[in-house]
Amino acid sequence: MSYQFASRTNGLRSSAIRDLLKVTEMSDMLSLAGGLPTPDSFPLPDLRREADRLLGEYGPRVVQYSATDGVIELRQWIADHYSVELGRKIAVEGQILVTHGSQQALDLLAKVLVDPGDVVVSESPAYLGAVQALELFQPRFEGIPGDEHGMQVELLAERLAAGLRPKMVYVVPNFHNPSGATMSLARRQQLAALADQYELLIIEDDPYGAIRFAGEELPPIASFTDRVVYLSTFSKIVAPGFRVGWMIGPPEVMAWVTRAKQAADLHTSSFAQLLLANVVSQPGWLDEQKARIVPMYRERCAALADALDSTLGDRIRFHRPDGGMFLWTEFRDIPDTTKLLQHAVSEGVAFVPGNAFTIDQAPDAKARFSYSTLSPDQLGVAVERLGRAVAATT
Amino acid sequence: MSYQFASRTNGLRSSAIRDLLKVTEMSDMLSLAGGLPTPDSFPLPDLRREADRLLGEYGPRVVQYSATDGVIELRQWIADHYSVELGRKIAVEGQILVTHGSQQALDLLAKVLVDPGDVVVSESPAYLGAVQALELFQPRFEGIPGDEHGMQVELLAERLAAGLRPKMVYVVPNFHNPSGATMSLARRQQLAALADQYELLIIEDDPYGAIRFAGEELPPIASFTDRVVYLSTFSKIVAPGFRVGWMIGPPEVMAWVTRAKQAADLHTSSFAQLLLANVVSQPGWLDEQKARIVPMYRERCAALADALDSTLGDRIRFHRPDGGMFLWTEFRDIPDTTKLLQHAVSEGVAFVPGNAFTIDQAPDAKARFSYSTLSPDQLGVAVERLGRAVAATT
Repeated sequence: MSYQFASRTNGLRSSAIRDLLKVTEMSDMLSLAGGLPTPDSFPLPDLRREADRLLGEYGPRVVQYSATDGVIELRQWIADHYSVELGRKIAVEGQILVTHGSQQALDLLAKVLVDPGDVVVSESPAYLGAVQALELFQPRFEGIPGDEHGMQVELLAERLAAGLRPKMVYVVPNFHNPSGATMSLARRQQLAALADQYELLIIEDDPYGAIRFAGEELPPIASFTDRVVYLSTFSKIVAPGFRVGWMIGPPEVMAWVTRAKQAADLHTSSFAQLLLANVVSQPGWLDEQKARIVPMYRERCAALADALDSTLGDRIRFHRPDGGMFLWTEFRDIPDTTKLLQHAVSEGVAFVPGNAFTIDQAPDAKARFSYSTLSPDQLGVAVERLGRAVAATT
Repeated sequence: MSYQFASRTNGLRSSAIRDLLKVTEMSDMLSLAGGLPTPDSFPLPDLRREADRLLGEYGPRVVQYSATDGVIELRQWIADHYSVELGRKIAVEGQILVTHGSQQALDLLAKVLVDPGDVVVSESPAYLGAVQALELFQPRFEGIPGDEHGMQVELLAERLAAGLRPKMVYVVPNFHNPSGATMSLARRQQLAALADQYELLIIEDDPYGAIRFAGEELPPIASFTDRVVYLSTFSKIVAPGFRVGWMIGPPEVMAWVTRAKQAADLHTSSFAQLLLANVVSQPGWLDEQKARIVPMYRERCAALADALDSTLGDRIRFHRPDGGMFLWTEFRDIPDTTKLLQHAVSEGVAFVPGNAFTIDQAPDAKARFSYSTLSPDQLGVAVERLGRAVAATT
C-alpha cells in the first residue's frame, strides 16, 4: 500500500526552526526563534494604494501569465538599482531572474549545477534554508569556519590550493544568519580573486544588506568579480509574504536557471512583481523605507544585547552585529543548548540551538536569538525568562 | 571561464510554445499558439475589492511569512470544495498543499518520487509543461496513446500485466492539452482499479475541468481511489498571474512534497492565497464565474471549428472538445506541420505543431489550435490566413 520515494528524499529534512515556529505560534510564548521581519516594517498603505491602482487601472495583464525571467518593470528596477550597487552595467535581459524568494534561487542553482557528490562550499555555521535547498541534490558539503568577520577565506584558499574544486561557494556576507557576522572588505576582495583564479562560482546571498544599523556599508563581492550569482529579496525590506526575490548573474548561468524556473513554476506572480516594482520605484521610496525600519532593528538589537549582558554577564558571549536580525551567542557553562531550550520553553521563551545550523547537528554551546519580532520591553521579559532557564540548566 | 552544469540539465529544454509566444507577442500576429485564458474572464473588480479589504483591514499577517502547506482559509476552501467533488472527506491538514501553480506540483512530485531511469507513464501526446518538469529528474517516459476518449487504459493494463512498474501515471482527464480529449467514465474507473491492483500513484492534472461547455460532467479518478494526487489551479477559472494551484493526495506522499516545497520556496504567497480564498469563498461566486466565462469558450470553440470546417473541409480532421481551450487537428496532406507553421507565420497566424507534444519531437501531421484568446471574428481571420498557408504548403 505504500509508495516508493526517490533516493534524494534522504536529504530532505524538515526545518527544525519552522517546526519549532509551529509550536511557538500556538502559545503565548515569547519567541526569539524565528527570522520573521517585524510586522511594523510592512508598508501596508503603499501596498494598498498600488494594488488598487494595478487592479483598477492597469487592465488584465497584471493577472495574466508573464515571462519566465520576470515582468519588465521589475527587471528594469533591478537593473538600474544594481548597476549602481555593483558598479557595473547590469542588463535587463539575460542577467536577471525574478524568483519566489532567495530560497527558490538556491533550489534552481542546485538543480542546474549539482550532480550527486559534487562539492558545495558554505560557511559554518550555515543558513539552514540553504542547506535544506541544496541537500536535496546530494552535494558533499565542505564547511569553512567563520568568525566575526565572516568566512575565513584564507582557509578556503588553502583547500583550493590543495585541490578542492567546488561547484559553488555559498556565502551570506552581510549580517549572516545565524552568526550575524559581516564579511570584511579584505575577505570580500580575496574571495573574488579566488573566484577568478580558480574559475569558481560564488553565490552571494544578501537578504539583510539593507538593514545596516552600525558600521560602514561594504561593496558586494559581485562588485569585484562577475563570477558571482548575487541573490536578494523584498522579504526583509518590504514584506516576505509575496515571495519575490531575484538573482543577478553571468548570462551562461542565468540561461540555465531560467529554463529550470520555467520547468519549476513558469514564472513568479505577475501581480506581485508589478505591485512591488511600483512601490519601490517611487523616487526616494527605498531610502525612506530604510530610514523608517532600520532604527527599529537597531533599537531591538541593543535591547536584547543589553539585557543579555546584564542578566547573564560572562555566562554568555556574543558580538553585536552591524545589522540584520540575529544575535549569535555561546554559553560558557551549557555544552548542549538543546537542553537549555527545553527549560526555556517551560519558562515561556524560545530560541534556536546552534546545532540546527550545522550539517552534523552535533550538540553545541551556541544559540541564535532573533530580536526582529519582539518589542524592546518584550525582549527584556524574554531575557528574564531565559535567565531562569539558564539557572535551571546549569 | 565557463561553468560546469549538472548532468540533469540535459533534460532541460526550453518550451517551444513559450519561445514561440515571445515572437508572437512582438508582432500583430493572430496567435492560436498560446494556452492563455481569455483576459475577459478575469474578475478584476472582485480581486480589486478583496485586495483592498486585505491590505486595509486584515493587518500585517497578509504579507508575512506563512505555513508551507498553505494559509488555513484557502486550505479550508479546498477541503470543503473537494470533499464534495471527490465524494470523500478531504482533511484540512495533511492532505493538501498549495503550490505555485500545477507546474510546481509536478516539479515537487518528480523531486520526491523519481530517481534517474524510473518509469513515468504519460499520455501521448503529452502536455509539454509536464514533460519539461519531469524530464529534469531523468525518468524513462512510457507513452500510452490516447484517442478522443483519453488515454487508452487497456494498453496500460497490458503493459502492467507484462511487468511495467511506473513511479507515477500522469493523466489530464478533462479537455486534455493538447488533444482536447475527455477520458470516458469507464476508463477512469479502469485506471483507478489498476492503481489499486498494482499499487500505482496516479497524477490527475485537472486545470480545465471547470471549463466544460458540452456533455456531462464526469467524476474525477480521485473519486474512485485514494491512490491519486489530484492537481488543480486558479489559473483558468480566476487568473493565472497569481501562480496559485493545489495538490490533494495521500498523506504519505503529501508529507514528502510538503518538505520539498519548504526547501524549494518556503511557501506560496500569503497575500495571493488569502486574496483568492476570499474571492472564491463568497457564496455562489464560483458558479457565477463559471456561468460568465464558460459561454465565452463555447462560442470561441465553435467559431474556430466552424471556420476550419468551411475553409479546410476534409483536408483537416478533428474532434470538437467538450471544454477547455484546445482543438487538436490532423492534416491530410501535410506530413510535417512545422513546415506549415513557417508559411502560417508569414501569413500572420501562429499555432503549435503536433511534434512539440511528443518526447521524440519527430515531425507529424498534427497541430494544436487554441481558441482561448481571440474573439470569434479574429478566429475567422486567423483561419483565412491559415487557409492561405495550407495552400502554400501542399
